[in-house]
Amino acid sequence: MVYLDHAASTPLRSSARDAWLAASQTAANASSVHGSGQAARRLLEDAREGVAELLGCQSIEVVFTSGGTEAVNLALQGLWWSREDGREAVVLPDGEHHATLDTVAWLQTQGADVRSVPLDALGRIDADLFAERLPGAALATALVVNNEVGTVQDAAALTAAAADADVPLHLDAVGAIGHLPVSFAALRGPGAAPTGLVALSASGHKFGAPVGTGVLVVSRHARLAPILHGGGQQRGLRSGSPDVAGAAAFAAALDEATRERDAEAQRLTALGARLADGILRLVPGAEILGDRVARVPGNVHALFPGAQGESLLFLLDRAGISVSTGSACQAGVAEPSHVVLALGRDERAARSVLRMTLGRTSTDGDIDALLAALPDAYARASGARSARRS
Amino acid sequence: MVYLDHAASTPLRSSARDAWLAASQTAANASSVHGSGQAARRLLEDAREGVAELLGCQSIEVVFTSGGTEAVNLALQGLWWSREDGREAVVLPDGEHHATLDTVAWLQTQGADVRSVPLDALGRIDADLFAERLPGAALATALVVNNEVGTVQDAAALTAAAADADVPLHLDAVGAIGHLPVSFAALRGPGAAPTGLVALSASGHKFGAPVGTGVLVVSRHARLAPILHGGGQQRGLRSGSPDVAGAAAFAAALDEATRERDAEAQRLTALGARLADGILRLVPGAEILGDRVARVPGNVHALFPGAQGESLLFLLDRAGISVSTGSACQAGVAEPSHVVLALGRDERAARSVLRMTLGRTSTDGDIDALLAALPDAYARASGARSARRS
Repeated sequence: MVYLDHAASTPLRSSARDAWLAASQTAANASSVHGSGQAARRLLEDAREGVAELLGCQSIEVVFTSGGTEAVNLALQGLWWSREDGREAVVLPDGEHHATLDTVAWLQTQGADVRSVPLDALGRIDADLFAERLPGAALATALVVNNEVGTVQDAAALTAAAADADVPLHLDAVGAIGHLPVSFAALRGPGAAPTGLVALSASGHKFGAPVGTGVLVVSRHARLAPILHGGGQQRGLRSGSPDVAGAAAFAAALDEATRERDAEAQRLTALGARLADGILRLVPGAEILGDRVARVPGNVHALFPGAQGESLLFLLDRAGISVSTGSACQAGVAEPSHVVLALGRDERAARSVLRMTLGRTSTDGDIDALLAALPDAYARASGARSARRS
Repeated sequence: MVYLDHAASTPLRSSARDAWLAASQTAANASSVHGSGQAARRLLEDAREGVAELLGCQSIEVVFTSGGTEAVNLALQGLWWSREDGREAVVLPDGEHHATLDTVAWLQTQGADVRSVPLDALGRIDADLFAERLPGAALATALVVNNEVGTVQDAAALTAAAADADVPLHLDAVGAIGHLPVSFAALRGPGAAPTGLVALSASGHKFGAPVGTGVLVVSRHARLAPILHGGGQQRGLRSGSPDVAGAAAFAAALDEATRERDAEAQRLTALGARLADGILRLVPGAEILGDRVARVPGNVHALFPGAQGESLLFLLDRAGISVSTGSACQAGVAEPSHVVLALGRDERAARSVLRMTLGRTSTDGDIDALLAALPDAYARASGARSARRS
């Protein structure tokens, strides 16, 4: 099996599994007062401190969630319910992840006005246009790494613009954490304003922690309402018995990913370049979308003219190779990629793309396998568009 | 270590751990289209079917959540945002869990009117009073098993009242699932109305699944809005990459708990009776609160006159015995128990209680240990109330 869909989910690290197993032997609830509860709480707080150090924030600013989707929802809904009177606008770049798009769509039912920010042809948010949309907004949000085309935004410029405009900003760093250096404090800068960068989301299973683990970094200066109400755990921002084992596994995986990060980035960038070059050589007219320089390591997003991405995915799958047409988070619905549309391409192009994402377990052999299977798959997919899945 | 706080969290079952480990070897995202994703999805759907069979519902009605708190929040907020025009009332018994209380308090900021239902001295909701409050309400909610005093409600009567009044009802079954027979279909009855029993919440770590796993059963006839928006997984009711390993572990633990349930109920009821009788014998004036008949097995909730529960907890903890003053979900804040107040007792009584909850690992030796340590702890706690923790 050749797995080239690490951006959808990457295998659990054994360090994370071991941390999960060790922590899950602690029977007690980390909110309990007795010694057993305190032992669980120490594991939780150790994990929180480890994550804080790795993400460049204070441990009190780490809020453990059930994943990236919850983290994004907490940031956006939480900022919305805590907004200043009279502020109704949400600054929303095109091409965001569905966790953001669908949460903002729901906020629209609660009175939010959306101010869109277009992407350029490489998937970059124009920081000047972003800044123009900010004044008087309730909140702003942006993906650090586009989850389909892999383009890396200038997070520092977006953050500075939000600070200048006195607007709270959430960065969706799900695709970045564990893969690129991210420091909350460095991005946010000093100062006690409840604006500028105030929240940053991460998802564990994108870097080898278990599915169902995530973090929202919330500045201690932020004004943020919870979305899960209850016992008041985690500064009252996220009630519910803390998932100590999940937190410990998240911290262990992030630690390992961070230590390997620079070497892996180099390795995956080289593997990705080999894959991209191979595709361009084998498929006439193929294109690599997204920014080829400011790009998350290991992402290869290709347009295959005249072939449906879905057909290619199916044919490669039959050859034992797992790739994606876009986000795995759209629950299998085959729609043209809204990200590719946001790059200014037409609907046909937005249906003719594949995302291949490399990770820790990827090898030269995986690239060989894909490049060996591609010519035949492409010939069949481009020649027999309506015969797919027959 | 003598652990008598199973209602706060009970040890992970090895069956659940093994299911978690096996499922977490599947690298892919269950929402991915390729074969690896489908393999993960099969594990998820197997878990969903297993849970559905055990809870008496259809598999499409099982929504996996990150725990009981999320399940309760989804039920209450979800019903609120889907309510019929002009309906603003929430029917709320006294003595509910904080996940419910705090969610309803938040709904009040969104315009909800609370209609309270008192408890009797044993912690029972009066079904007639409950029914009186229902007409025209947006939604109603009730705990099946009170998480402090262990009283079991007449869920069938509450459900019938909600169906008669055409009001959607959520049952918080966190303390019941795995310990008492609960069938969603039997409680709900036939019919396609979006009212009556429409949602039922469960928490995995109350019966040996990992912390961070939960389920909301949502009738396919319910009108329910999501609170976590995104990729549209799980009927659009709970977006986010599904936690396949957590779901598999939840299903395995629930299966084992269900198979052991009747024998365990008998064993824990007998152990609990021994503990309760011992307390009444050793401590003059002590009382067992809650209903001694309609009670979840293994719950012993005692009032110790003239002693602070907090002091007793501390002294027993020093003797190696873990108990609770109430819910662990209040994050260590020492307040008089709102449940004991709801039984009609005064604030002093509400500060003089201990909850001891037995579980799978509890033995006669644990009861012996508590009864051996109690006289001295009680003497010190009742004699030296202000000297605690000195």
